[in-house]
Amino acid sequence: MGNDAPIGVFDSGVGGLTVAREIMRQIPEERMVYFGDTARLPYGTKSKQTVIRYSRQIIRFLKTKHVKAIVIACNTATAQALEELQSETEIPVIGVIDAAARVASSVTKNGRIGVVGTTGTIESGMYTKVLKSYNPRVQVYGKACPLLVSLVEEGWLHDSVTEEVVSRYMKDLEYKSIDTLILGCTHYPLLRSVFRKAVGEAVTLVNPAYETAMELGRLLDREGLRCSADAGPADSKYEFYVSDAAEKFCSFANSILPYDIEQVRQINIEGYESEERAY
Amino acid sequence: MGNDAPIGVFDSGVGGLTVAREIMRQIPEERMVYFGDTARLPYGTKSKQTVIRYSRQIIRFLKTKHVKAIVIACNTATAQALEELQSETEIPVIGVIDAAARVASSVTKNGRIGVVGTTGTIESGMYTKVLKSYNPRVQVYGKACPLLVSLVEEGWLHDSVTEEVVSRYMKDLEYKSIDTLILGCTHYPLLRSVFRKAVGEAVTLVNPAYETAMELGRLLDREGLRCSADAGPADSKYEFYVSDAAEKFCSFANSILPYDIEQVRQINIEGYESEERAY
Repeated sequence: MGNDAPIGVFDSGVGGLTVAREIMRQIPEERMVYFGDTARLPYGTKSKQTVIRYSRQIIRFLKTKHVKAIVIACNTATAQALEELQSETEIPVIGVIDAAARVASSVTKNGRIGVVGTTGTIESGMYTKVLKSYNPRVQVYGKACPLLVSLVEEGWLHDSVTEEVVSRYMKDLEYKSIDTLILGCTHYPLLRSVFRKAVGEAVTLVNPAYETAMELGRLLDREGLRCSADAGPADSKYEFYVSDAAEKFCSFANSILPYDIEQVRQINIEGYESEERAY
Repeated sequence: MGNDAPIGVFDSGVGGLTVAREIMRQIPEERMVYFGDTARLPYGTKSKQTVIRYSRQIIRFLKTKHVKAIVIACNTATAQALEELQSETEIPVIGVIDAAARVASSVTKNGRIGVVGTTGTIESGMYTKVLKSYNPRVQVYGKACPLLVSLVEEGWLHDSVTEEVVSRYMKDLEYKSIDTLILGCTHYPLLRSVFRKAVGEAVTLVNPAYETAMELGRLLDREGLRCSADAGPADSKYEFYVSDAAEKFCSFANSILPYDIEQVRQINIEGYESEERAY
């Protein structure tokens, strides 16, 4: 595996495309293999044990593509599985939480940070743990927002219903005087303007997709893994795989990415179960 | 397997509990084994092929419980997989579409019937096919309502946001002059009053959970499969299994069912893959 190997990126579905999009913008010369686990989404409601098992299957698949590094472009999988996956994988694995937490803990002035995400991400307490590792004195206020993924996938991005739902979720944070809010689910950057409207101008919004792509660039530099030359047009540089419903994935992807995907391949991800771990 | 064997009921998650609840009400003497595929929900966004594979695994599991009949308490799985499962299973298998379609086609006066459900159910066209088999002259108007399952699972049952979402979905049916509306997703009976408000008193609402429990009673009579005596208190009569997150299932179930479940067991449903069908 050389420097010209691709980066592996995975998510439970389409949300991780906001991370893929940032990688395309910030380090456009790198190849990328994206996997969306559309047959088993959403991960946000699943247990830690199940999310770890699914993530292991996906990493086994990505390794068949000889990736040089892996980005878990999913907050739930990062919260539930990053530590296990890092300890058992020989190539670098990063998640979407660490970089965002580092930035949030450095930009906050009053030390009061809000985090929004799926139920799984918030209940895992992972953002709180990582934020406190950077600054033990920050106060972290988590709020699960389980309706927002459906609203984004319905395409109601700039919509009065979505505004009402976000504003209602934000009410719970209203009296916490946060000055920084982490958009802790990969779908939420697509609702950035709705969150902005709900929380006002005084709150700094932190976008983990953006911060993670920055982190990936620094990681590749540090490990001497940058590719030697741009691999050419997007269609030859980027590959997309899903576990189900490739067409629907494709149409959502094309509404987000800066170019139109020509091909999304469907694979049977359950076939990548490690024998010694099957039960 | 005798008449005192349980009925097997399955769904992608908690929605099928509205069907289980009707069975408990209408034929309270029967035993029941319920399986909710919470690790892989929702089915509404998955392909036909995947829904069939998952349903086959579940039927293999239910057979280990020696069930005497199976109810697919899930509109998506009924739409995508009922025919295949009926043709390959030796015990009776019924879905949630047939009885509701028969009732709707008999109660409509102007022959204009609306159907609401998940994207998978509506796109399958299964309700249209079955409704037309009962009355070829009915006009069927389907409307996918992908946000409603999340709203129910969030517990926003009597809520202005839910009312706005339902009313917006119903706008597409407004000019169709329907006089009958099938609540074609097992979660929707919990939104019955919201639908009533949106469509007015003149439209007949058909609840597939209710009609399916009625159908099951008739099937047991016809096949001579009625149990010989009531198996006693709910806890000894009903068993619940899920593929993930048993606690969350339990708390939702207890908000719907007429008694509090004591135990929900978690199983690895992927382990019930048929060898000759694995790929």
